[in-house]
Parts: sequence; structure tokens; C-alpha cells
Amino acid sequence: MPTLYGFTPSGNCYKPRLLMTLLGQPFRWIETDSSKGATRTPEFLAKNPNGRVPLMAFEDGRLLSESNAMLCYLGDGTAYYPADAWQRALVLQWLFFEQYSHEPYVAVARFISGWLPSDSPRRAELPKLVERGHEALGVMEQHVSKHRWLVGEAFSIADIALFAYTHVAPEGGIELHRYPGIVAWIERVCAVPGFVPMMGPWPQ
Amino acid sequence: MPTLYGFTPSGNCYKPRLLMTLLGQPFRWIETDSSKGATRTPEFLAKNPNGRVPLMAFEDGRLLSESNAMLCYLGDGTAYYPADAWQRALVLQWLFFEQYSHEPYVAVARFISGWLPSDSPRRAELPKLVERGHEALGVMEQHVSKHRWLVGEAFSIADIALFAYTHVAPEGGIELHRYPGIVAWIERVCAVPGFVPMMGPWPQ
Repeated sequence: MPTLYGFTPSGNCYKPRLLMTLLGQPFRWIETDSSKGATRTPEFLAKNPNGRVPLMAFEDGRLLSESNAMLCYLGDGTAYYPADAWQRALVLQWLFFEQYSHEPYVAVARFISGWLPSDSPRRAELPKLVERGHEALGVMEQHVSKHRWLVGEAFSIADIALFAYTHVAPEGGIELHRYPGIVAWIERVCAVPGFVPMMGPWPQ
Repeated sequence: MPTLYGFTPSGNCYKPRLLMTLLGQPFRWIETDSSKGATRTPEFLAKNPNGRVPLMAFEDGRLLSESNAMLCYLGDGTAYYPADAWQRALVLQWLFFEQYSHEPYVAVARFISGWLPSDSPRRAELPKLVERGHEALGVMEQHVSKHRWLVGEAFSIADIALFAYTHVAPEGGIELHRYPGIVAWIERVCAVPGFVPMMGPWPQ
């Protein structure tokens, strides 16, 4: 059974956890608190020189980092990653959009709001992060207000990747009221058979 | 023949251009100067709501954004994107690394240095960007100092994606002297049969 090094409140770590749960794929979870330096130890850096979670370790010693690469690898050959070449291209388009135009704003605003002390100088970054987060949500809204899922006619790993941080965007001060399409899409994701919520205590 | 909307000095736009050239795939190039707002016009936003180049338009009307999604789609079934599932996972790992941990520092430092006026307040971002860029190059160096290519035994789209901004990192003040593995890997990429350099005038 593979081992997933992850930090429970992390959306990136939730992505492979949600997919493996939907697939009925058992896995071992090793809590790795990146907010307390657990991904910067020599032991962890030997496994992932980029010092980030999630990290997957397979029983034969293979290691894989990058949450969205995990979604593609684990989802390959299942209903969650379409086999059609063009649909795959669109899935990847959303996955790269998520990591470049969405996560660096939506997730980082949440991290600064929820993890850093109230007098952290990084709070000065919040207005810009919130603004850019809204830009990303605006792009999503254009799509999900007209389509049930991000790609084609079925829930896919693209929905998993975008759901992870979108549904907790308000925790970073990025409210969702102005996006009725996204709010309805979030409800659809939560209703997918086998769905499990992003669990774990919210840091105080 | 597909149309590629791109900005010549952009590494992201160079990626699909290099791959299509290697593949002998003819394409039409429409110069789209993102530094002058050409990706924020209503006409362009109708094609890509995220307002970025590169953007590919196929003759049947299909549209694809995200440079690394293009590499996967165009590379599928060719020698540049391995068919093996695990090797594909490792390619994707590098592609997501590039967009999340490399491009936002190496490419943005180059943009600020080369495109913005010398009194731009954004120049204050440079020291942090240079520091993070070196972190990304350090991760690459660990790999390419021991391996000929990023994944397996052959040049792949992973090498194309990382080459695009790595080889021009010094233009953003991120010098490569301390990375002999990367310098040698750049030479290997430039020697790939059919290689074409990133052309275009450097803005003054």
C-alpha cells in the first residue's frame, strides 16, 4: 500500500487523499506538518529535494511529488481521468491553471490568514492575493456557470484539483457569494458518490 | 494547421514552438505582446478568459491554453512524451514543478529585469525572486548532475519545459555558474537534433 506524506489542512494533500478514497485505494498517511518545518528536515529532503508535501512513497521505493502529477498517475485508466486525448488536454489545462493562476493566490491567502500570527508582515500580501484569487475564480465561474463539470460530462481529477482550495477560499478572505456557478459546482462535487470532506483541525 | 498566439521572448510560448519544430508540425504564429496588453483585449479574452499566452487555436475551433498542457497534448504518441505510465508521472512531476516552483521566480525575475522600467517599484521583488529561483535551480542541479535527462534515458517534454526559462535565467540576475550540471544539461538540450533557439529581439 502506498504511503502519503501529507499535512491534513493542506488542499494539495487532500487531492490525492480524495482520489484514492474514491478509488477504494488503501494508503498509509504520515502527518507531516509543513508549517512547522517537517518538510525541511534532511530525512524529508532526501525523499523530496523540493521540500514539499504531498509526497507519495510506493512500496517498491518509487517516490512521486506534485499533487496534480499524483492525480494523473492514480487516475490513469479510471473514470476520473478521461482516456480521450483532447479531454485529457483540457484536464491538464485546468490542472496547470490551478497550480499557476489559482493556488498561489487562493491557497496562500488562506495560509497567511489561518497559520501566520496576526502581526505577521506577510499579511500585507493579502489584498493582492485576494484580488488575484478573485481573478482565478472569475475564470472558473465563466466555465462552471455553463457546464456541470470542468471537462466533458463527468466529474474528473480536474474537479478534484480545483475543488481542493476553492471550497475553502473564504478562509483566506476570498468570499464566494459573487460566484453562484462555483457555489453550485461545489455542491455537485460534495454530492459525488464516495466523496469525503477535507478533514482535520483548523489551526488556532 | 494550428495557430499559436505567442509573445516571442516568452519562455512559455517558446515551449510549444520548440516541440512543434522538433516534430515537423507546421503552425501559424500570431505575435501577441502580453507586455503591452494584447492578451487583455475583449477579443483575446473571448479565446482565453485567463488572458495569457501561449494559446493554441486549432482549425476546427478548439482552443488550448497552458504551455505544459500543450506539450503533453502535442507530444502524446511521440518520442518526446514516454508511453510508460510511471515515466509519464515523472514528466508531469517536473512540469508541475516548473510552473509552481521555478517559473514564478526565474521567469518573473527576468520579466522585471528586462521589461519593466528601471524605476519600477516591482524591482523590490527581485532579491526574493532570485533567492527562490536559486532554490529551484538547486533542485534541478541535484538531478541533472547525475542524470543525462530529467526523465529516463531520453530528451522529453520535461526537458523542453525546464529549458525554456532555465537557459535565460541570467537575464533575471540568476547566474548559472554554480550549477555545472545544469550548464552541461543546457548544452545537451542545444545539441538535440532539430533544436531551434529562443529567437526574437530582447526588449530595450
